[in-house]
Amino acid sequence: MDAENNLIELIKSRKSIRNFIYEKISNDTIKEILECGRWAPSANNCQPWKVCVVVHPTVKRMLAELSNYGGIIDSAYVDFVIFLDIDKGSERVKDIQALGAFIQNILLAIESKGLGAVWIGEILKNKDQVNEIFKLPTEKFELMCVIAMGVIDEPMIEKNEKERNRNPLEDIIDFY
Amino acid sequence: MDAENNLIELIKSRKSIRNFIYEKISNDTIKEILECGRWAPSANNCQPWKVCVVVHPTVKRMLAELSNYGGIIDSAYVDFVIFLDIDKGSERVKDIQALGAFIQNILLAIESKGLGAVWIGEILKNKDQVNEIFKLPTEKFELMCVIAMGVIDEPMIEKNEKERNRNPLEDIIDFY
Repeated sequence: MDAENNLIELIKSRKSIRNFIYEKISNDTIKEILECGRWAPSANNCQPWKVCVVVHPTVKRMLAELSNYGGIIDSAYVDFVIFLDIDKGSERVKDIQALGAFIQNILLAIESKGLGAVWIGEILKNKDQVNEIFKLPTEKFELMCVIAMGVIDEPMIEKNEKERNRNPLEDIIDFY
Repeated sequence: MDAENNLIELIKSRKSIRNFIYEKISNDTIKEILECGRWAPSANNCQPWKVCVVVHPTVKRMLAELSNYGGIIDSAYVDFVIFLDIDKGSERVKDIQALGAFIQNILLAIESKGLGAVWIGEILKNKDQVNEIFKLPTEKFELMCVIAMGVIDEPMIEKNEKERNRNPLEDIIDFY
């Protein structure tokens, strides 16, 4: 089955990409990627997500100053700043899981298009200041992550290639 | 691009399946599905997940009694009981997101194999009793969800078909 093999390959080949070349990515492509997030599951289909799509260099710079990975945020063609929309949400644990599913769909969509991205969680340490940039009240929107996305700088990737590893399946499953 | 189209179709066609026929699913298939979870991203690659794979009817029955959706848990060929492994974890919000990504990979893998599943979050109301079934200390493992999986009862699906909907993309994204 093609769908099956493609999915498994896609999931296994996806990895964090931190080196981008500057090349435009169309708004249509950006929307197709976010469309995959939109179909993520959520408790009672509450869809508690919001995305600020940042392409403007000045806004990127403001974001970049709030993270140790500012260089990546700056050099990405676009940064997706992803929030939990608290008013739309159901229960906190379920909502945060739903955002995880939303983020993963987006990362897989990016991989399927041959583009690169990295999920930046470290910026959560400055989450209130991120809200300020977008004038979003912190009691209504909670920063979940930034995804920096761009066209992959292939020579740099090969240079920085590290072995990706995961714990053996036997270590994480038990049969009953 | 095939990978791209297949992924988007897979993500959009996936939906909750609550009616199963009784038909064996091999352990190899079950492991291939969980393998997709295993490659989910997590903060510092901490992989804070654990799965109890339940096929034994007595254990299913004990689980079923803790949920309003016990009929689904009983009739599924297998139930994946998914925990956050707190000792392995990084920060709580990031860990719960990672579990969301782990769950979504598993749901997509199930869809890619033509099998059906539903993500049951309601059982979290009895999460401590679920830990007791598996003798897992609550300070080390926190229930995240149960995924009930089986061979789809196609005639029932058509009968119960509801229109799936999502909010328009324009409602959830803003460009900067």
